[in-house]
Amino acid sequence: MAALLSSWNDTPTRKTILDFVVRVTDETGPQFVPPEERIAVFDNDGTLWCEKPAYIQLFFAIARLKEMAEVDSTLLKKPAFKAAAAGDMGYFAALYPNDLPSLMQVVFDSHAGMTQAEFEKMAYDYLSHTQHPRFGVPYKQCIYQPMVALMDYLRSHDFKVFITSAGGMSFVRTVSEEIYGIPRENVIGSNVTFEVGRQADRLILLRKPGLVDPADDGPGKPVNIELHIGRPPILAAGNANGDIEMLEFAQASGRPFLNMLLHHDDAEREYAYDQGAEKALQLAAERDWQLISMKKDWQTVFTF
Amino acid sequence: MAALLSSWNDTPTRKTILDFVVRVTDETGPQFVPPEERIAVFDNDGTLWCEKPAYIQLFFAIARLKEMAEVDSTLLKKPAFKAAAAGDMGYFAALYPNDLPSLMQVVFDSHAGMTQAEFEKMAYDYLSHTQHPRFGVPYKQCIYQPMVALMDYLRSHDFKVFITSAGGMSFVRTVSEEIYGIPRENVIGSNVTFEVGRQADRLILLRKPGLVDPADDGPGKPVNIELHIGRPPILAAGNANGDIEMLEFAQASGRPFLNMLLHHDDAEREYAYDQGAEKALQLAAERDWQLISMKKDWQTVFTF
Repeated sequence: MAALLSSWNDTPTRKTILDFVVRVTDETGPQFVPPEERIAVFDNDGTLWCEKPAYIQLFFAIARLKEMAEVDSTLLKKPAFKAAAAGDMGYFAALYPNDLPSLMQVVFDSHAGMTQAEFEKMAYDYLSHTQHPRFGVPYKQCIYQPMVALMDYLRSHDFKVFITSAGGMSFVRTVSEEIYGIPRENVIGSNVTFEVGRQADRLILLRKPGLVDPADDGPGKPVNIELHIGRPPILAAGNANGDIEMLEFAQASGRPFLNMLLHHDDAEREYAYDQGAEKALQLAAERDWQLISMKKDWQTVFTF
Repeated sequence: MAALLSSWNDTPTRKTILDFVVRVTDETGPQFVPPEERIAVFDNDGTLWCEKPAYIQLFFAIARLKEMAEVDSTLLKKPAFKAAAAGDMGYFAALYPNDLPSLMQVVFDSHAGMTQAEFEKMAYDYLSHTQHPRFGVPYKQCIYQPMVALMDYLRSHDFKVFITSAGGMSFVRTVSEEIYGIPRENVIGSNVTFEVGRQADRLILLRKPGLVDPADDGPGKPVNIELHIGRPPILAAGNANGDIEMLEFAQASGRPFLNMLLHHDDAEREYAYDQGAEKALQLAAERDWQLISMKKDWQTVFTF
């Protein structure tokens, strides 16, 4: 609780969180939820780490496409490779939000064919060493301290905390234990699938092109939560339209629940934008989901 | 350790298990494995619960097909419904092992279209009330006590224990906490996928026909372990050919590992059969995987 206090301001939002945890953990109270059902889910991009000026994994994919085109210039005939080589972020920005499937295909196929071990090394190195263009620190440091503190706080009250990312599950897992204290198996996300191969008679996993269906966005979030966890969350936090169904899943469970939506309203310390969250913000107002104002509710944003 | 001692005989198998756990948990030793990497995986059918005279979930599916045909007799034109209504187990037995995909389709599609909540209730009731034809106790009691004790023992040494069933993930999850002490999110298996629906404006999950690819059998086991857990196991236990790749995955990890194969050699207390395990038994001998003899290594099999 001390940790939660230190990075959250003393606002109604903080009180709502603390009250909810007290209610569901009070064994003698009417809203008690047993520990095995205390599932909490957090979106990742824009909820736990910064998603501006673009998704971190998009930068990672672009770097890979550029690298591949340097080795094989015939790839430049393909628009994604051409845009990556030219540093044309506008090409990728135009794919979102109108053609998210195409964007995801570009992102995920950029590392197809390699072994999972190679991918993990590449992703970990990228997140640990490539700097955010504005903040000048490695991407893995661009995480919201109050959310990390909230996840700690929930775990200390016997919640099971999961990440439900629309971005790459394997990508986030390479750093989840280090930066969030969330074990790999508690990270759900969109992902490629794998096939079993052999290397010198040893079994290896190769990354296949194409995504596991459904991608972990929008209606795919409840589906993946059911597949990976097997019960609905009682606490769900997101920041964008792709999180709506996940929040609805918590609301539909018939149990006490707390839904939260992080509002990016702090251009000074992070970014201020509603794009991609318009409908979620509207529903939050209609359904009494708790809005988190980055500007008002958080004493600190990052640790750097 | 007391629990492990009470249901396992004092044989080399038991010693191998105890020695392995000592080695990987000794922080000062050369084979120490940190807790986050202590992943243990157990197949379910024939490894944790009895799979004879047929898979429990097959009995469950047949009961459902029969029930559906009673409501709609036109279904009897389909061979699976006809066989179910006539109690013709031979029809289903012929599908295995030669046409496992068809058998799995029959099993999983038998509950397509219903909500996940309805399915869970039906599965839980079946496992709790329908009796095993030979043992005369509910199916959920037909679990191997020494394996439950082993999973407890591993958890008490900070292993993360998962079930990796070729059978239905949702089916096993309805009882996993009660009978094995394994939380739902630690049960991996073959499964249908879901789609989001609405019931009186409330989000619900509907079971779709068709299986999530790949099914959790053979080469699908390492793939699903990677998708659900994100790292290879250091302890893997199975009993059949469909577990081979899972054991190979542990062996390929480069970490200390213990692979075990349960040998059904106890016709008196359970069943004696090698069918479906021929290749696994051969590899166990070649690769020094630890064989568990039900007859010699287990003091008790069931608790009833």
